Amino acid sequence: MQDGVVGVDLGGTWTKFGLVSEEGGLLAYNAIPTNSSVTYQHFFKHLFDQVIQLKSSLDVELNLKGIGIGAPTGNSCLGTIESASNLDWNDNVPVVSVLEEYTNLPAFLVNDANASAVGELLYGAARGMENFVSITLGTGLGCGIVANGKLVMGKRGHAGEIGHTTVYYDGRTCSCGRQGCLETYVSAPGLVRTVQKILSEKGNKSTLRNITSAEMDARKITEAARCDDVVALEAFEYTGRILGLKLADIVACMNPEAIVVSGGLAKAGDLILEPAKENMEEHLLEIFKNEVDILPSSLTEKNAAILGAAASIWQEIKKKKTHHA
Amino acid sequence: MQDGVVGVDLGGTWTKFGLVSEEGGLLAYNAIPTNSSVTYQHFFKHLFDQVIQLKSSLDVELNLKGIGIGAPTGNSCLGTIESASNLDWNDNVPVVSVLEEYTNLPAFLVNDANASAVGELLYGAARGMENFVSITLGTGLGCGIVANGKLVMGKRGHAGEIGHTTVYYDGRTCSCGRQGCLETYVSAPGLVRTVQKILSEKGNKSTLRNITSAEMDARKITEAARCDDVVALEAFEYTGRILGLKLADIVACMNPEAIVVSGGLAKAGDLILEPAKENMEEHLLEIFKNEVDILPSSLTEKNAAILGAAASIWQEIKKKKTHHA
Repeated sequence: MQDGVVGVDLGGTWTKFGLVSEEGGLLAYNAIPTNSSVTYQHFFKHLFDQVIQLKSSLDVELNLKGIGIGAPTGNSCLGTIESASNLDWNDNVPVVSVLEEYTNLPAFLVNDANASAVGELLYGAARGMENFVSITLGTGLGCGIVANGKLVMGKRGHAGEIGHTTVYYDGRTCSCGRQGCLETYVSAPGLVRTVQKILSEKGNKSTLRNITSAEMDARKITEAARCDDVVALEAFEYTGRILGLKLADIVACMNPEAIVVSGGLAKAGDLILEPAKENMEEHLLEIFKNEVDILPSSLTEKNAAILGAAASIWQEIKKKKTHHA
Repeated sequence: MQDGVVGVDLGGTWTKFGLVSEEGGLLAYNAIPTNSSVTYQHFFKHLFDQVIQLKSSLDVELNLKGIGIGAPTGNSCLGTIESASNLDWNDNVPVVSVLEEYTNLPAFLVNDANASAVGELLYGAARGMENFVSITLGTGLGCGIVANGKLVMGKRGHAGEIGHTTVYYDGRTCSCGRQGCLETYVSAPGLVRTVQKILSEKGNKSTLRNITSAEMDARKITEAARCDDVVALEAFEYTGRILGLKLADIVACMNPEAIVVSGGLAKAGDLILEPAKENMEEHLLEIFKNEVDILPSSLTEKNAAILGAAASIWQEIKKKKTHHA
C-alpha cells in the first residue's frame, strides 16, 4: 500500500492526468480530450472514472490522498476556473467543490502555467533556481514566474498572464476580447494563423496548401518545416521572433536566470527557440545581454504541470496535517 | 547622541539625500544637482561634504552608521552603477568603494527604483501589501516590484526595468540604444518630446510655442496644462495613455494589489494618472478589471527612494551585527 495523489493538467485541447508519489514519481499517466461541449459536471465525473481505471492498472495498491488540478485562469483562493478563454464552460467553474463531492478527496486548484513552474522548480530544468520564468506553449501561452525562490501568484493567483500582454496594439483579435495578445501569435493556433497569413500573401510553393484550414495544426506545420517547407519555416521564424520580443520585456521586468519552455509547440525545439533567443538578445538592455538561458523543459514527456499540480496538493495535505497536529 | 544613516537618491538631474533614523524618520534633507560632467570621485566627495554640513545643522548630535544609495542600474552585488543611460560617467562607477574610502562608513547600493519600492513598502502607500508595483516618473521611468511581500531583485538586482520594455517596435530612439522604450514616452523628457511632436504637427495656439526646446521641461508643461493649454493637455493625455498600456501588461504579469506612482512627473497627478487608469482598464483581461488601484505615493515630499536606500543600509548593518555576534 502506497500513498499517492492525482495530478491533473487541464488544457484547452487535452486533459492529462497522472498518479504521483510524494517524491514526485509519476506512477501512471493518461490523457483524455477536454470536452467542454458537455457540462463540466459530466466532464469531471468522466475524468475521475478514468483516474480510477488508471489506478486499477497499477501493480501496487495506491491510497489516494487528494487531487491537484492545474487549469487556465484557475483561482486557488476560490477553487474556480474564471472565464478561461480556451474553454467553453460558463464564466465560473467550481472545480474544487465538484471534484470533492464526486471523489470525497481533498482537491486543490492552481493556474496551469503556475503548476508547470512549480513542476520545473521542484523536479525540472529550473531545480535550485531562485529566479526564473516558465513558458508553456500550447493552445494558449501560459507563464509562471518564480522570484526569490517562490512562485509569484499575485493578489488573486492570476500572475503570469503574459499570454495576454500586447505585442501590437492594432494586432490580431484574441478569444479574450482584446487585440494583439501575445498568444494570438505565439501558440499552436497562433502558428496556424501565421501560416494562413503567409499562404494568403505569398505565392511560394508549400505542401501546407494541400491542408484545409480546419485540419491545419502545429504538428503538421512542424513536420513541413522539418522537410524545409519555406512557408512553415517562415511561420516558425515569425513566431519565434515575436516570442523573443516579449521575452526581452519579461527579462527587463524580472531579471531571471533562465526561461524554461514547455508544452506542445515547444516540441518544435530550435525551429521556434532559435529565432526567439536571437530576437530576445537583440531587444535586451546591455546589462541583460548573454545572461539569460532559454532552456527546453526537461519534463516535457513527464509533464511539468501534472507534477506541479500534484506537488500543490501534497503541500495542502501537509499544511492540514500540521494544522490538525 | 542618536544613531542615524544617510539615504541618497541619485537621479539623472538631482541627487537628494537625507539623514534617517532607524524608525524611518527623516531628520534632515537636502539636494544637489547631479553633476556627471565632473569625475565621479569629485562628485561623491562633494556630496559627502554636503552630508556633513547637513549633519552639523541638526540640533542633536548624530552618530552616522552608514550610507545607503539608490541609483539607476545600481548593482547591489558589485556595488557599482552599470552603464546608466541618464548619467555621463564611465560604464562602471564603483560607488560603494569610493564612498567607503572617503567616509570610512559602510555603504550599500541599490537600484533607485527598488529603493523607492522598499520605501513605499515600509513607510508609504504600500505599507502591508504583499504584491505591488512602484513606478517612479522622473528623468527616466523606474520600477520596483514586490511579490510575496519581498522586493523582486532577480539574478543580479536589475529586476524592474520596465522603462526599457518596448511600446512601439519602430518607436522613439532611447538613450539606451534601443527603440520604442516606455521611458522615451513616459518620463519628463518623454513628455517634452511629445509636446514638440504635437507643436510640429498641429497648428493649435499654445503658450508652449514661446519656450525654446532647450528650456522646455515637465514643470512648464504641467503649468500650461493647469491653464488649459490644449497642447499641454494633449501631451499629458498621450503620455498617460501609453503608461496605461504598459501598466496593463505589468498587471497581467504580476496581478498586483496596487501600483504606486512617485517622482517629479507624478506631481502632475490626475493629468497623467487619469488617462493612465482609463487606458489600463481598457487593456486589462476581464479577471483583472477594477481590481488594481493606482495610488500616488504618500511619500513624494519625503522621498521614498531616500527612505528605501536608508532602510537598505539599516538592514545591512543589522546583518553584520548578527554575523559578528
